[in-house]
Amino acid sequence: MKLKLLYSDLKSDLEVIEKELAVAVNSSSPLLNEASLHLLLAGGKRIRPVFVLLAAKFGNYSIESIKNVAVPIELIHMASLVHDDVIDDAETRRGRETVKAQWNNRVAMYTGDFLFAKAIEYITEVQNTYAHEVLSHTMIELCIGEIIQVEDKRFLDQTVRDYLRRIKRKTAILISASCELGAIASGTDAKTVRHLKLFGYYVGMSFQIIDDILDIVSTDEQLGKPAGSDLLQGNITLPVLYAKDEPAVAPLLHAMLEGTISATDQQNLLKAIRYSDGMTKAKQLSNIYLQKALNEVKQLPANSAKKSLQNIALFMSKRKF
Amino acid sequence: MKLKLLYSDLKSDLEVIEKELAVAVNSSSPLLNEASLHLLLAGGKRIRPVFVLLAAKFGNYSIESIKNVAVPIELIHMASLVHDDVIDDAETRRGRETVKAQWNNRVAMYTGDFLFAKAIEYITEVQNTYAHEVLSHTMIELCIGEIIQVEDKRFLDQTVRDYLRRIKRKTAILISASCELGAIASGTDAKTVRHLKLFGYYVGMSFQIIDDILDIVSTDEQLGKPAGSDLLQGNITLPVLYAKDEPAVAPLLHAMLEGTISATDQQNLLKAIRYSDGMTKAKQLSNIYLQKALNEVKQLPANSAKKSLQNIALFMSKRKF
Repeated sequence: MKLKLLYSDLKSDLEVIEKELAVAVNSSSPLLNEASLHLLLAGGKRIRPVFVLLAAKFGNYSIESIKNVAVPIELIHMASLVHDDVIDDAETRRGRETVKAQWNNRVAMYTGDFLFAKAIEYITEVQNTYAHEVLSHTMIELCIGEIIQVEDKRFLDQTVRDYLRRIKRKTAILISASCELGAIASGTDAKTVRHLKLFGYYVGMSFQIIDDILDIVSTDEQLGKPAGSDLLQGNITLPVLYAKDEPAVAPLLHAMLEGTISATDQQNLLKAIRYSDGMTKAKQLSNIYLQKALNEVKQLPANSAKKSLQNIALFMSKRKF
Repeated sequence: MKLKLLYSDLKSDLEVIEKELAVAVNSSSPLLNEASLHLLLAGGKRIRPVFVLLAAKFGNYSIESIKNVAVPIELIHMASLVHDDVIDDAETRRGRETVKAQWNNRVAMYTGDFLFAKAIEYITEVQNTYAHEVLSHTMIELCIGEIIQVEDKRFLDQTVRDYLRRIKRKTAILISASCELGAIASGTDAKTVRHLKLFGYYVGMSFQIIDDILDIVSTDEQLGKPAGSDLLQGNITLPVLYAKDEPAVAPLLHAMLEGTISATDQQNLLKAIRYSDGMTKAKQLSNIYLQKALNEVKQLPANSAKKSLQNIALFMSKRKF
């Protein structure tokens, strides 16, 4: 089943968001417009705006007010992607040239900064200072997550808890904020806001664990980038952490971290992790987060969005690449 | 006269801001703390917080509320510096190693993003949504200014107006916002806010023109970086723009833009601009902005800060390096 079918009843509202994103990135600089539109057209699943809209359905839904939350959330996501590309020196993303490849690092840097600033401008339209706090807090945690990823790189003595805290910041918080802010912006009651916020958090955790599993088990073609690239960059993800002491994994992993591994052994390392117990355990933990997410959905009031949230959670946690 | 003497009566309040900046950059990541503190200790003149405080003296001055404006303004300035260093591949700034030199680009990138986000968190404490708009608008214009600088690079057919619009965004708007936000945060009357905002704008314009003049006329030692480095990077500043058609300048300038200039001729180019009529004209325009700034000060109500604003404007526009 295609993701888009899961939220076909949001189609016209997602088009409003899409148009508003184009308005948001419009400026007096032709170069900035080109770079931003390039990013916008690269698309992406707009999964965060989908969460915003669905969460907003539990309150007084009005696309005109909800968009002031959905747009900044997506802008922050876009900004973080373009900044990642500068750092990772990435030439392509989702099969398209990156901004830094098509223009240069300077353009990519300030396009990212511009998108952050635009996000803030949009959220100020929401007459709820708590919503502003949620967004700035989310941005802060995102950045801390990125820095902690640097600190934890190549560091095998980290715990599963370290990993979970890191992906919470890197991924789960923004999805959680999407749900929370959508609900807040539509004046949803506090109890429902809390369930939606937790739902987003659990879905985000499950989603990132799956992402880290796919980095190891997928083919280059499925990922659109070399398989295992996270691992080869020294990011210690959950399957690696669980598998690190297995006899088939440990020597190769140490060789990789010491930079003495051959290209063939890199592939052997990926294969060893792929068939390790660590992989099974990682899948189990992802599934536990999925169940927690579904449990939050159950406690939501009945409405048309409830089933959609359930389906998207299942979809995101079951995807193959 | 030392700049610090000009605002000695702000000393204790500037210490409050300094302490608050240290609190602001504190996070759960030791690496981020180190990088941020490194930036903080690199210092700088804190001229923007000074403008915030002085402008606030025209209303109901309370350091506890004003700091929620002064801190984000300085954080945005710091963030833009650390991002500039990533792009310019700068190893030192103000004689200290940059964050990107001491750690790496990834740390510098996300330290900058973190500081932006922290700035936003602080301003949400100010119960005035117009203040939030001013800050996000300022951030947006700063980024557009940086991108336009890329567009205008090596482009000799630009007008003086193009240059002025660029430095307005790059420099004047943040100083203008410092004055405006300081005044707003202390509940200053609308007319005074307007004079202070304009004052900041004119001072910022004068300041940046002087900065661009100094890039050409100073020695490497005075600047702490190679003289003429802006020009050699292809940034067409006001003295260059005014001097570009002079016979002693034009051929060397074209050779530089085409990348066919020798090291000796680079020095000859700088010398030719230094002694050109363009240099005189640039100084004149800087002075016009200074006079406009002083004219705004004149129209402010009499108080202790009035004289300080006047002195700082004179100081900034008369500095030798």
